[in-house]
Amino acid sequence: MKVAAYAAQSAEDRLASFAIERRAVGPEDVAIDIEYCGVCHSDIHTARNEWGRAKYPCVPGHEIIGRVTEVGAGVAGFAKGDLVGVGCMVDACLGCAACKDGDEQYCEKGALMTYGGTDPHLGGPTHGGYSKRIIVRDKFVLRIPGTLDVKAVAPLLCAGITVWSPLAHWKIGKGHKVGVIGLGGLGHMGVKLANALGAHVTMITTSPEKGEDAKTLGAHDVLLSTERDQMKAARSRFDFLLNTVPVAHEMNPYIGLLARNGTMVMVGAIEPMPGIHGGLLLANRRRVAGSGIGGIRETQEMLDFCGEHNIVADVEMIDMQDINEAWDRVVKANVKYRFVIDMSTLPDAA
Amino acid sequence: MKVAAYAAQSAEDRLASFAIERRAVGPEDVAIDIEYCGVCHSDIHTARNEWGRAKYPCVPGHEIIGRVTEVGAGVAGFAKGDLVGVGCMVDACLGCAACKDGDEQYCEKGALMTYGGTDPHLGGPTHGGYSKRIIVRDKFVLRIPGTLDVKAVAPLLCAGITVWSPLAHWKIGKGHKVGVIGLGGLGHMGVKLANALGAHVTMITTSPEKGEDAKTLGAHDVLLSTERDQMKAARSRFDFLLNTVPVAHEMNPYIGLLARNGTMVMVGAIEPMPGIHGGLLLANRRRVAGSGIGGIRETQEMLDFCGEHNIVADVEMIDMQDINEAWDRVVKANVKYRFVIDMSTLPDAA
Repeated sequence: MKVAAYAAQSAEDRLASFAIERRAVGPEDVAIDIEYCGVCHSDIHTARNEWGRAKYPCVPGHEIIGRVTEVGAGVAGFAKGDLVGVGCMVDACLGCAACKDGDEQYCEKGALMTYGGTDPHLGGPTHGGYSKRIIVRDKFVLRIPGTLDVKAVAPLLCAGITVWSPLAHWKIGKGHKVGVIGLGGLGHMGVKLANALGAHVTMITTSPEKGEDAKTLGAHDVLLSTERDQMKAARSRFDFLLNTVPVAHEMNPYIGLLARNGTMVMVGAIEPMPGIHGGLLLANRRRVAGSGIGGIRETQEMLDFCGEHNIVADVEMIDMQDINEAWDRVVKANVKYRFVIDMSTLPDAA
Repeated sequence: MKVAAYAAQSAEDRLASFAIERRAVGPEDVAIDIEYCGVCHSDIHTARNEWGRAKYPCVPGHEIIGRVTEVGAGVAGFAKGDLVGVGCMVDACLGCAACKDGDEQYCEKGALMTYGGTDPHLGGPTHGGYSKRIIVRDKFVLRIPGTLDVKAVAPLLCAGITVWSPLAHWKIGKGHKVGVIGLGGLGHMGVKLANALGAHVTMITTSPEKGEDAKTLGAHDVLLSTERDQMKAARSRFDFLLNTVPVAHEMNPYIGLLARNGTMVMVGAIEPMPGIHGGLLLANRRRVAGSGIGGIRETQEMLDFCGEHNIVADVEMIDMQDINEAWDRVVKANVKYRFVIDMSTLPDAA
């Protein structure tokens, strides 16, 4: 349903439209009762149609933790009662070169997004994790290490994998000087994961307070990007910059921080950016790259790594009824560092 | 000497200032009689002070071919009569990590440029190849394969290595789809070298005529960037784009041509560029990089490769007296593809 048609409905009709239809459990499907769902800024962009491609009714949520209630006849890897997760994707072609490489997020035919995609079973939009239940193809279901604080695992399914994927792809580890730019949902996971991978981690921020917070999360030092002298002294220092700033911003000051062959990976800003200086790239053979979420195999690797290193997100739990206030606080970047909805607070009908 | 002081001189004083002082041949030095020197757009930018850091008197030229006339007592690799080349650099610290990796062009203390650098021996600016003689530290002298057309080798020392270095660094070869953007001095060498390395080469240009020319140089096909349908059909096609456009330009249409994990390397434009779209980078995990000239070891590797594959630049020979006209034609991109000065036409006093 288009925005205008949805907006024109009465409140009763809108509520009625939320009786979400779900497909029958197919041979490769896993049915999940959702226990927790993280709140991602993408949920807000989508529900408010800020990216201009929303389909209503819209059920956001792609940081999903739950228990298996039923599996299809062909499912070998999961059984009723298993603790599982679902992230940003629920299907892909699995036949293209990208899928075969485990890069389903770059599927040449387009991965099926957990919400707002076109559901091949029912035709309407796919519906995400702000819900009681979800049915997902087994290959897109993740195993959750039982040792972790389960509710704080939810944000790993989007925020976690979004920063893990570039850290893993660029093989970041011991001996690397890593800068994490921005301390929000993504940035705080970037600091934790880069630290656990053995890198020397610098928090790059405009805020001394965030700098101090980052140290408690695992940053070894802090670079204040507003301080000209600090930035000058840090020129050509970093092997890798994880840029989590979620909006358009001037990149040149950060590019200048890259060492020879260094890469800055953009994971937050998916909009037009200000210009960059060609000379800054030529010097030191620097690179600017982008990276979007991550593949299923590497998501499982991240979850297993987090299990081994006891890493979860820092979360603030909310009831479903608090979602509008939570969204407003996300927009104001007023959360440390991710809201997670306790799905037991959603009435059973939903 | 600063611009204003130089401009204030009489014509006689200016000529007198061109009695270039040269250092005595030191133990690690090679003295060279220059036979040919290529004309690079950088010569013009520098001599006309368009980059704002010219020092006068200015003797440009960093695509130098000549014969050894004398070697220092400690020089083992060269002897009188050897055919040699000198490129964009004449010295570097050789002790930093970059130099130890063979990346003298990214020397952490700054490589000494062939012209316009600060000469550590004499204090003034270094003087380049528009000259009868030059004295260069042996480690920055290249061996020229005797099988090649010597005068057409000169442009390999800058235009050649500038495109070879990224092709070699990113290990381009068989099975890679390479696009070369722009057909000038750099682009024509990019087409020849990428072809010889075994890649499938597409010329990307605004000009159908240049497209046809590129095919004669080794391009397998042509993509007209002005044709919307062609550009759309080529989305996500290329593993590697060698962007030789020498001025600021919109990068987004080219970024969209990159396949998963593809890289566009900027080698021409060293100025502020228009903005790029973050979403284009995130999709396909694309990268935009820069690369500047190349190291001494890889320059020798390129020259040896060109010797084996009989590759030289397409050149138009000029006398020293024609230089002003040639420069005007370089600025108008009216040369196929590089001017080379026959240095025997320069009077002996110079």
